[in-house]
Amino acid sequence: MTEIRLSGYGGQGIIKMGYIIGKAASLFDNKSATMTQSFGPEARGSACSSQVVVSEDRVLYPYVNIPHILVAMSQEAYSKFESNLDKEGYLLIDEDLVKPGLTVAGVKMYSIPSTRIAEEMGNKIIANIVMLGFFTAVTNVISADSVRKAIPGSVPKRFIDLNLQAFEKGYEYGQETLNKQGK
Amino acid sequence: MTEIRLSGYGGQGIIKMGYIIGKAASLFDNKSATMTQSFGPEARGSACSSQVVVSEDRVLYPYVNIPHILVAMSQEAYSKFESNLDKEGYLLIDEDLVKPGLTVAGVKMYSIPSTRIAEEMGNKIIANIVMLGFFTAVTNVISADSVRKAIPGSVPKRFIDLNLQAFEKGYEYGQETLNKQGK
Repeated sequence: MTEIRLSGYGGQGIIKMGYIIGKAASLFDNKSATMTQSFGPEARGSACSSQVVVSEDRVLYPYVNIPHILVAMSQEAYSKFESNLDKEGYLLIDEDLVKPGLTVAGVKMYSIPSTRIAEEMGNKIIANIVMLGFFTAVTNVISADSVRKAIPGSVPKRFIDLNLQAFEKGYEYGQETLNKQGK
Repeated sequence: MTEIRLSGYGGQGIIKMGYIIGKAASLFDNKSATMTQSFGPEARGSACSSQVVVSEDRVLYPYVNIPHILVAMSQEAYSKFESNLDKEGYLLIDEDLVKPGLTVAGVKMYSIPSTRIAEEMGNKIIANIVMLGFFTAVTNVISADSVRKAIPGSVPKRFIDLNLQAFEKGYEYGQETLNKQGK
């Protein structure tokens, strides 16, 4: 079972990212997945977070306490959630939006300029999908092919191609990152 | 406790609608709320559904079985979920996208051309927020003021005004609908 927290600010498409992960995992990777929002005080202001549980078996308890993977797309989200990350977990950040502090030795940190890449592609709004591609490459929770299948039914029709391109950009960036590390 | 199912097709912003309802209820109406996606076979193809539970107390079980309110923004979603609606529940539809069959006598059906209204405002993509305004007016689950507060942190900055206007359009349409019924 993999517990994931995706976080950033409202309007970044954080929840859409979780939705596509869940869909990819369950419909095309034959796993089970649940996405949950609970709207505690931490949802105040511009913070936005989405919890996804991906499992080989049926998900009985959908809430996430200590995620194994944290994606942070804003400084506020990073500050709020970093301390709850599993001590051997994965931390994925947008490197232009998050300046991380010291991390626990066991945490594997990966960074990508997802928003900048999206802007270079002409639309900041797909930064979440660039990050999704990066996530797919570095974490191995879902397969790239499943995400490619899950995207078309999850975004407005006229934006399908743009979203698929954004996914590939992030995915390639993730693969290059792993290659540089010799993994 | 009110169990709500929002449904339509991917890209309509169904989940965003649920997210704003949850945020409005919990942060500004002092209730508790949870939003859940479980990705069963029903998530295949273009169907999209989001479950929201709004409660005076803490939500312990976030899954929705027999919703009290069903919002349907596509024919497919209507066909899939209508039979599970509470027999005294509310059915809200986009009247251009859903042609309803016979409904159970106790079900209260309300219809709005949310997509057409959004198009007239220049952008089909805000049909979900027009529907959210309509939902707010006819169901009384969340207050209009809370939604007005929840929208700014939930959409991209440059679209805040457009979303607020879309909300008001749907809200007014809902109030007029109630007035015509003498409620």
